[in-house]
Amino acid sequence: MADRRRLIVVSNRGPVTYGTDEHGELVARRGAGGLVTALAPLVTRHDVTWIASAMSQEERELAASGPVEEQAGDGSRYRLRLVAHAPEAYRLYYDTIANPVLWFVQHGLWDWMVDPRADLTVAWRDGYVAVNRAFADAVVQELDRDPGAAVLFQDYHLYIAPRLVRDRRPEAVLSHFVHIPWVGPAAWDVLPSEIVRTIHDGLFANDAVAFHTERWRSAFVESCGAFLGTAAAEGPLVTACPISVDPEEFEQLARRDDVRRRTDDLFPARPERVILRVDRTDPAKNAIRGFRAFGRLLERRADLRGKVGMFALLHPSRLSIPEYEAYAAEVERTAAEINERYGTLEWTPVTLDLRDDFLLSVAAYRDYDVLLVNSIKDGLNLVAKEAPLVNARDGVLVLSREAGAFDELEAWVVPVDPFDVENQADALEHALELPLELRRSWLASIRAQVHAHDLDAWVAAQLAVLDRASTMRA
Amino acid sequence: MADRRRLIVVSNRGPVTYGTDEHGELVARRGAGGLVTALAPLVTRHDVTWIASAMSQEERELAASGPVEEQAGDGSRYRLRLVAHAPEAYRLYYDTIANPVLWFVQHGLWDWMVDPRADLTVAWRDGYVAVNRAFADAVVQELDRDPGAAVLFQDYHLYIAPRLVRDRRPEAVLSHFVHIPWVGPAAWDVLPSEIVRTIHDGLFANDAVAFHTERWRSAFVESCGAFLGTAAAEGPLVTACPISVDPEEFEQLARRDDVRRRTDDLFPARPERVILRVDRTDPAKNAIRGFRAFGRLLERRADLRGKVGMFALLHPSRLSIPEYEAYAAEVERTAAEINERYGTLEWTPVTLDLRDDFLLSVAAYRDYDVLLVNSIKDGLNLVAKEAPLVNARDGVLVLSREAGAFDELEAWVVPVDPFDVENQADALEHALELPLELRRSWLASIRAQVHAHDLDAWVAAQLAVLDRASTMRA
Repeated sequence: MADRRRLIVVSNRGPVTYGTDEHGELVARRGAGGLVTALAPLVTRHDVTWIASAMSQEERELAASGPVEEQAGDGSRYRLRLVAHAPEAYRLYYDTIANPVLWFVQHGLWDWMVDPRADLTVAWRDGYVAVNRAFADAVVQELDRDPGAAVLFQDYHLYIAPRLVRDRRPEAVLSHFVHIPWVGPAAWDVLPSEIVRTIHDGLFANDAVAFHTERWRSAFVESCGAFLGTAAAEGPLVTACPISVDPEEFEQLARRDDVRRRTDDLFPARPERVILRVDRTDPAKNAIRGFRAFGRLLERRADLRGKVGMFALLHPSRLSIPEYEAYAAEVERTAAEINERYGTLEWTPVTLDLRDDFLLSVAAYRDYDVLLVNSIKDGLNLVAKEAPLVNARDGVLVLSREAGAFDELEAWVVPVDPFDVENQADALEHALELPLELRRSWLASIRAQVHAHDLDAWVAAQLAVLDRASTMRA
Repeated sequence: MADRRRLIVVSNRGPVTYGTDEHGELVARRGAGGLVTALAPLVTRHDVTWIASAMSQEERELAASGPVEEQAGDGSRYRLRLVAHAPEAYRLYYDTIANPVLWFVQHGLWDWMVDPRADLTVAWRDGYVAVNRAFADAVVQELDRDPGAAVLFQDYHLYIAPRLVRDRRPEAVLSHFVHIPWVGPAAWDVLPSEIVRTIHDGLFANDAVAFHTERWRSAFVESCGAFLGTAAAEGPLVTACPISVDPEEFEQLARRDDVRRRTDDLFPARPERVILRVDRTDPAKNAIRGFRAFGRLLERRADLRGKVGMFALLHPSRLSIPEYEAYAAEVERTAAEINERYGTLEWTPVTLDLRDDFLLSVAAYRDYDVLLVNSIKDGLNLVAKEAPLVNARDGVLVLSREAGAFDELEAWVVPVDPFDVENQADALEHALELPLELRRSWLASIRAQVHAHDLDAWVAAQLAVLDRASTMRA
């Protein structure tokens, strides 16, 4: 208990979502998303207050009655403070700024010809800034209750809250983990300079800012130099440490009967070799170029037709945003085009599976020959760590050089350039022909890496950074 | 006559175009485009063979009968060799590769989410490479006739011809001027790596490669390092020298009666103040964000409504390419939107003029109060040099930081960031309010700069580079 800490975790989504059951009773369910899973260990080992947005009518009512005590899956207790936002402010914050603007800019998806979002000024002020202010108010109230607690802001929804807290509580220990890529000054230049400056200034108000890889870290240092004109020494401690998963959790999942049963369901007529991808239908995940690469491979290697199938488990995502809707339609169109061109009565080249079922993903993880992760950019990509843990076919990972996980795993993967369709076709061909011995050795190395650098190690590293930052402040 | 040189100029478009008159006789007309104008002085002072694509049926027939002797406007004679290409090869080269792919990549217009041109391999091989090979064949034949002649390749249509010539004539003196921006490795990464390597290798085969500004020059050195892995010292002499205009030509034009008459035609009801832009309807010119910026200015400064008008002389361009057609439609839609929102019966905020009439542009150059050049990227931008030469209203130049001309003129312009609409609104407001004394002094400084660094000086600099390159080779 000696190193039990007092932490205030701040993220847009909370660790539970509340709804009502068939009797009209309020029930809590574990929240979705990798971030919430990743931060769960904190609750077990420390005294945590978690601040998150109220997402539903039930949560909005709960927010009004103040913080509640919640219980995690393992019985540990934590304090949950939900922040209710005006629905229009939340819509501007989430659907106009955070996802299409910040996510697009930071994943190299911005349309430079015509801005996808033309008039940002109002959405920024009445959405992003307003919601960040509400979060900052909640953090200040929690700090007033416990001034010694350290604050852990999470991700791109909350870039400016740290500045808003810092201005009111200069002595607070504030840290931020950015889970998506950071990009250099030229990429940020597409946004109004005042918005860009405010984002950098907001993060700069932390004692510590962390990213998944050295690449994103150094891009942040560079863009702070460009937009704030400050030397890194004056600002926060900026570190890089890749997030990870709990290997035991995945190994247990893979042994479950309901996972094994799903394998048959997944591949009703399994081809000799399976190329798998598991993503959201996010343009950053680059499914279309992956399908085209598979088409190119079938074009040049007629002998593979009928023997190899590409299975894409794609969870529809953010369809309220027009670009996502258009992209998802284009994904389906591209798959259909390849199937029409190369498919036969007995064999479908590309199978799209849009069911959002985590256990189905785990079943697929067990059973691929080649796993394709060809993201345009990716903060880390957890699939690249999860799937090899449970794969039972000596499967090969084909991994984008632009995924954060590449820096850790590159010695044991077939690398791909996300924009180069020919290169991806070459990589798939190479992966399918890799000798068994090498496949086994690579898979074992990836597993050893993930075991040695697991989620516990990541959490410990984040707390160590907090200690260094607090010491520097003291 | 002592320094009269033997030159082989190679450009896609030639200095004349041939057609037939009403009697069916072949007639030559001066070719359009800034590049041809810029290179015209070479013909007067040197022995020039000009190699260009045959564009029409007449030119194709002319090409078949071999090189012809032509006469320039001032009576000087030069040799013209037209190269006929198969129509489908030319279409792939020009409409698929050179304009939408190379131009888009080098102007920051590429759609990173879904490639605007998905299958480049065939168009590259059967279009761009085939046409470059035909140019290289013609250059080799001309070099065999006169091995001491120096070759001057022009622009992005001919990146790989130098390598194809070099492999067959190792001793030839080859140079290349790239008239559009060069971009760093990350921007090139959107294309297949083999194409990118071939482009860089093609330019690397020259003795000298030149750009309009130091920025494009250093991006080229950087991308050669990334894609060829070679130190700059091993490759061509790489220089930067901005192209210019002939000041006397523009001063004479501005005095012409038919130019003066066009002023009335241009502004039937001239508002107090005129903001002008003169461009092709190319997405790189950024007309839409310019209109939006003017809309923002009218929103915040109601006192300017009715008093200021934006006049956009936009020459429709490359409409056979779908992205250009869509962009041109969006340009019109955006202008209409602003006119609907702010216009009155007496006053139209934005006037679009799509007539392609050079004398009309010169008339407009004389008569603006503010000239807006807000290009996303621009190799140089000649309008920024031409218009101030003849302006008669102490007009202010608002100039994109991303135009090559910015490096020369920045001390005497209001700078703008091309993606930042608010910043452009601020700049227009600032330009309209600039005191007379400063406007006069800035305009005089721009004119002095263009006079001191005119087209003759640029041509002389290019020939001096050729001399250095020949000496290094000897």
